[in-house]
Amino acid sequence: MSVVITGVAGFIGCNLAAALLERGDEVVGFDNLSLGSRRNLERVLAQPRFSFHAVGLEDLDAYRGVLRAAHARSPIAEIWHLAASSDIPAGVADPRVDLRDTFMTTFNTLVLMQELGIGNLAFASSSAVYGDRGERSLTEDLGPLFPISNYGAMKLASEAAISAALESHLQRALVFRFPKVVGVPATHGVILDFVRKLKADPKTLRVLGDGTQQKGYLHVGDLLDAMLYIRQHAPEKLAYYNIGAGDEGVSVRHIAQTVVAAVAPRAAIAYGQGNKGWVGDVPRFSYSTAKLAKLGWAPALSSTEAVAKAVREIVRQESAA
Amino acid sequence: MSVVITGVAGFIGCNLAAALLERGDEVVGFDNLSLGSRRNLERVLAQPRFSFHAVGLEDLDAYRGVLRAAHARSPIAEIWHLAASSDIPAGVADPRVDLRDTFMTTFNTLVLMQELGIGNLAFASSSAVYGDRGERSLTEDLGPLFPISNYGAMKLASEAAISAALESHLQRALVFRFPKVVGVPATHGVILDFVRKLKADPKTLRVLGDGTQQKGYLHVGDLLDAMLYIRQHAPEKLAYYNIGAGDEGVSVRHIAQTVVAAVAPRAAIAYGQGNKGWVGDVPRFSYSTAKLAKLGWAPALSSTEAVAKAVREIVRQESAA
Repeated sequence: MSVVITGVAGFIGCNLAAALLERGDEVVGFDNLSLGSRRNLERVLAQPRFSFHAVGLEDLDAYRGVLRAAHARSPIAEIWHLAASSDIPAGVADPRVDLRDTFMTTFNTLVLMQELGIGNLAFASSSAVYGDRGERSLTEDLGPLFPISNYGAMKLASEAAISAALESHLQRALVFRFPKVVGVPATHGVILDFVRKLKADPKTLRVLGDGTQQKGYLHVGDLLDAMLYIRQHAPEKLAYYNIGAGDEGVSVRHIAQTVVAAVAPRAAIAYGQGNKGWVGDVPRFSYSTAKLAKLGWAPALSSTEAVAKAVREIVRQESAA
Repeated sequence: MSVVITGVAGFIGCNLAAALLERGDEVVGFDNLSLGSRRNLERVLAQPRFSFHAVGLEDLDAYRGVLRAAHARSPIAEIWHLAASSDIPAGVADPRVDLRDTFMTTFNTLVLMQELGIGNLAFASSSAVYGDRGERSLTEDLGPLFPISNYGAMKLASEAAISAALESHLQRALVFRFPKVVGVPATHGVILDFVRKLKADPKTLRVLGDGTQQKGYLHVGDLLDAMLYIRQHAPEKLAYYNIGAGDEGVSVRHIAQTVVAAVAPRAAIAYGQGNKGWVGDVPRFSYSTAKLAKLGWAPALSSTEAVAKAVREIVRQESAA
């Protein structure tokens, strides 16, 4: 039996592949290599129980071809569907980006799972499905759901399609609502952005917005641990869980200071105005992880510790680049 | 200024066109004529302020062509987007039906509204977004949202895309969560089904399920009244309202008896087993219309009265056919 990971060449996908291989699984990875890269896969490509196929999952026929072939070689027990556009501003500029990369990849995954009789899906959803609810605590059962980014909208659309598929053919679905996740290989996000800006101009770090945006951050090591924990311990047929550090989070200001201290301690930090970084960004939210805590899981690192560790890792990554 | 209605040749679309024309609007109607029909439009096609274009809205280029031309003739102030697959079982058999007809029609509408700078959208959503919550009262702010039909999933996906579009370009959106709506011209639904079955076999009416399914029904006249009332009185930029009679509803058993009394009073009624008609059907729910009542609207007809009136209208329609 084998396990498929879509979006395997992305930040979380390649870490997940390493974790599942370590556990003894046979892993088949798909990625269109638009935001992910082969370089992220160097470590796992060396392993005999891993195979990789470059394919765009929005193309149903191409997707069917590689999935059917993999299923014939070794029956697929489970699909971990992580493929999505991780570039939220690109999806604001053109909604077709998230339609294609965030939603149609999910829709096609469900169509093929029905065709091939694959019953188990694990899906990377997002806190973006909740939209902007101000200071309101974001629990899993909160309604209404009115996302403010096309990324969030297409993640919610994906959840909806998965929910309907459970009624007709899926056996079990895990819906993980991801927080901001940090670690390496970093491909996007505020820490990488700051490190690169400071490398280009070690005198001044210009920050979008006033730096008061505060969010929870989870280290990718904790994220993997949480997903595997939920897979094993959640009792539901449709297991939907917020994943996060469950703390107050860290401000952009604190992240800027941490990066400055690590990269260019004498740099000045220049803040912009307002507490939104871009259209579709949520200035502050309180992300409840009580349901996951009740299931018995706790993170190893707080938001502050996760950011500190990720800054060290990303500075090392960028020095090697 | 003109108003566009998509799905204008369907049951609700053609009634809406008549109502808007009566109010003095210039109306441009689109329909792919797959479930709707030109016959439904006979009454409005005679009016000079109405124009109709047969077009499939899932084809962005074709849709752009007719919308741009209409906008050039008379600037479009508002789009009433009603086009969708109304055939829920077809969407259960093949999820691509609702992807194309229920979701992509909405997605393309939003793309073109951004291109042409049209700011006001009225959208026919559905109580199907709530999924099966048992006896739980379905208020607009209920969460989580896990639909059990592809139709419900693609209505929720549409709501999500509209919500994100409001953040970037739309000025105002009305999201109407429709109940079961009855009246003429009937194209589908339980009353039409029973009338036709009894015409084919006047001795026995076979009912799917045990007949205990209980749902609220709204007459189409009340539905139009509620939509226009919300359009005028709702204060929100994103105005989302359940629309319904707000009563206990009517059982399938009662509908069967009403149709039998009207069509073939001596017919026997044979019930099936279980309280679900088909996959994706919700056996019973309590649909809250408190938000709409608070806005000051009340229906003219109860569920029982709406069904009684619709049975008379549909029997007349089928006799004329």
